[in-house]
Amino acid sequence: MAETVEQKQEFSRGLEGVIAAETKIGYVDGINGILAYRGYDIETLTNQSNYEEVSYLLLYGKLPSEKEYIEYVSELKKEMYIEDDVYELIKKISRTAHPMSSLRTVVSYIGGKDKTSVDPDVKQQEEIGIKLIAKMPTIVAAIKRASSGEDFIKPDPELSYAANFFYQSAGRKPDTVEAKMMDTALILHADHGMNASTFSAMLTISTLSDMYSAITSAISTLKGPLHGGANERALALIKETGSPDNAEKVLSEKMEKKEKIMGFGHRVYKVYDPRAKILKGYAEYITKKNGQEKLFQTATKIEDLMVNRLGEKGIFPNVDFYSGILYYSIGFPPDVFTPIFAVGRISGWVARSYEYVQNNRLFRPRSRYAGEKAPRRYVPINERN
Amino acid sequence: MAETVEQKQEFSRGLEGVIAAETKIGYVDGINGILAYRGYDIETLTNQSNYEEVSYLLLYGKLPSEKEYIEYVSELKKEMYIEDDVYELIKKISRTAHPMSSLRTVVSYIGGKDKTSVDPDVKQQEEIGIKLIAKMPTIVAAIKRASSGEDFIKPDPELSYAANFFYQSAGRKPDTVEAKMMDTALILHADHGMNASTFSAMLTISTLSDMYSAITSAISTLKGPLHGGANERALALIKETGSPDNAEKVLSEKMEKKEKIMGFGHRVYKVYDPRAKILKGYAEYITKKNGQEKLFQTATKIEDLMVNRLGEKGIFPNVDFYSGILYYSIGFPPDVFTPIFAVGRISGWVARSYEYVQNNRLFRPRSRYAGEKAPRRYVPINERN
Ligand SMILES: CC(C)(COP(=O)(O)OP(=O)(O)OC[C@H]1O[C@@H](n2cnc3c(N)ncnc32)[C@H](O)[C@@H]1OP(=O)(O)O)[C@@H](O)C(=O)NCCC(=O)NCCS
Ligand SMILES: CC(C)(COP(=O)(O)OP(=O)(O)OC[C@H]1O[C@@H](n2cnc3c(N)ncnc32)[C@H](O)[C@@H]1OP(=O)(O)O)[C@@H](O)C(=O)NCCC(=O)NCCS
Repeated sequence: MAETVEQKQEFSRGLEGVIAAETKIGYVDGINGILAYRGYDIETLTNQSNYEEVSYLLLYGKLPSEKEYIEYVSELKKEMYIEDDVYELIKKISRTAHPMSSLRTVVSYIGGKDKTSVDPDVKQQEEIGIKLIAKMPTIVAAIKRASSGEDFIKPDPELSYAANFFYQSAGRKPDTVEAKMMDTALILHADHGMNASTFSAMLTISTLSDMYSAITSAISTLKGPLHGGANERALALIKETGSPDNAEKVLSEKMEKKEKIMGFGHRVYKVYDPRAKILKGYAEYITKKNGQEKLFQTATKIEDLMVNRLGEKGIFPNVDFYSGILYYSIGFPPDVFTPIFAVGRISGWVARSYEYVQNNRLFRPRSRYAGEKAPRRYVPINERN
Repeated sequence: MAETVEQKQEFSRGLEGVIAAETKIGYVDGINGILAYRGYDIETLTNQSNYEEVSYLLLYGKLPSEKEYIEYVSELKKEMYIEDDVYELIKKISRTAHPMSSLRTVVSYIGGKDKTSVDPDVKQQEEIGIKLIAKMPTIVAAIKRASSGEDFIKPDPELSYAANFFYQSAGRKPDTVEAKMMDTALILHADHGMNASTFSAMLTISTLSDMYSAITSAISTLKGPLHGGANERALALIKETGSPDNAEKVLSEKMEKKEKIMGFGHRVYKVYDPRAKILKGYAEYITKKNGQEKLFQTATKIEDLMVNRLGEKGIFPNVDFYSGILYYSIGFPPDVFTPIFAVGRISGWVARSYEYVQNNRLFRPRSRYAGEKAPRRYVPINERN
């Protein structure tokens, strides 16, 4: 039991391959390139379902009946509003903060106003989860507008979840394809195994802390460039490269400096990320429509070169490589890409935290101690060097 | 690699016994009841050192020379202030929020104002860490005062870290024993292996997210009653019990309902928590001094009964059992106990996150899938039941 006893024990850095929990929610087959939610593969869901339904599915394990669907959607619509003081806070912090940092603060702030978060039971955790799923697009859109110096737009109860997010962000209603693209992107980001942010939410709730705290942790974790932050940097790379002809040179320079190429590689997928495949199709469509073909061509050239170099190591584009182009082409500024990821992932975060807390056990691993042996002698300060 | 392949694999719930990282910072020997920071056992440190020095030790691996100590302390004093808008925010949110929830929001908010948090390099992570160590007592004291409806008190550069925290919270300078008690409590809480909140900070920073995000996660996680939230509930139990004579009855009722007794048990210690031993001494002293002996007697009676019942299972008082009495006796309201824990633990959170990110690897475990097999057939909504 002593941490010392394990000093010589091997361990897996970053918990790679270590199983941390059992789940019925989602399933990533990194060898065959399959991602399925509750057994429904994401191709089926993006083709036939919508985000609201997928969110219900993740939470409750089955597709809703018509009645359940209507109830769930009306619950989301009831809860999608944020109060004036939240808009004020967003306006204030968006002057300086990165949108992911603002998102973290706003979710935490809303939590402080909700008395049920002090010591929630399982039912209250679920209710908070639904509130957060409902409010996430409203919050992110408001942050997007405040940080671009634009006026806020309130949610429109006539619109779907994805269309409403688009509308509140862009200030205009999406056309059919834009709405479908947004819905698809959100579905594709909704859940993905024990990724770092989801694990973070579960770890937080495992102390029986509240769902706002869990989601605040998840946002904190998603912010990093090795996770959600990659999409912003992937687009920067593509724009910096500028044209397909420069791709070879840019990549070589980065690889020589041993820099990681953002938007490539994955802890689990060792084949083409099925989400990237779907987003690539949309990215091609929208860049063509908007006269930004060069962006897409540059991206595919980077992909070809990377796969040539590193494909045999199992490194392929991941979900973040093409999502950036897509969001950019429909008018989102790059620093809002990771918050969009959060809008999609909120359902997975909530569903997995809720699943975990219903059969809870505190996450509390060990560390291997490799430092000075106790007891070290305390030397008074005037005798130290 | 596929999450399916591992379906039959055994795993350890809550990652119990699983090694998640290597460290040179601290070491918990749960069998022999030893806690040491960088090889110095906590009895030595609480007797001979102080919180500032321990904080330096955790971060940098050695006790500071006189020159290093002066520099470090002057850095802390330079950074201990918070700006007016932060005080305003604290005033506003403290009207409704639990102090732990306010603390989470405030740290996140301060992070949003610091440009170095957008994409920090390792040096900037360290600098942010020091800023947070410096500001933590100021923030927590301000939250304590705002939520008690008291005016804010600014830090006093003449005072030590612990005395300053006491002063800003209580509105009067501590006497020598009070200052020593506070210093001791903060040292005892400074680090404790891969506890859930520390792990949470490391998990967040492992995506190369920033130190503010890491600490926001840690606070989110500490909030739960299975972790930091236990001290508040331990005191409630002692007060609810009221006198030693009631202890048997109260405990029996709770145990029958299979409720956990807060302030007892530990994932790592299977013997008497060495921190509880030190705090128990102070609790005895201060309750006697303040005429609250009954509180202490009730607590020791609960301890005796619990150890009788569960000692052979390795269940003993943990750090949270006597800390509550102590804080209460020097005038802190119970909902500020966990924030006090955070003031102590901030050094461990920062030191371990900083150590990890210098030799970083993304935390990304797996889950065992036990749900419906893919591909499930999508049934249109009007055909569902
Ligand atoms: C996602 C990621 C963190 C997973 O990494 P991991 O499981 O920890 O794998 P490692 O970082 O240990 O990488 C394994 C090897 O592949 C290489 N590699 C992995 N991703 C790479 C990338 N994007 N560019 C270049 N090389 C990469 C590593 O350099 C390493 O090479 P080595 O064996 O010669 O040292 C990693 O692929 C990465 O940093 N990608 C870029 C960020 C990104 O797009 N994140 C979004 C994920 S959805
Ligand atoms: C800290 C804690 C979460 C560690 O627990 P863990 O390693 O997950 O251990 P478990 O919860 O699996 O407990 C093991 C057994 O001891 C019992 N046990 C543990 N702590 C107990 C407590 N405080 N009161 C009563 N029984 C307790 C459990 O019921 C379980 O019994 P079982 O084997 O009959 O099911 C747990 O002891 C606890 O909840 N304590 C109370 C909260 C607290 O004081 N936390 C602060 C820690 S510093």
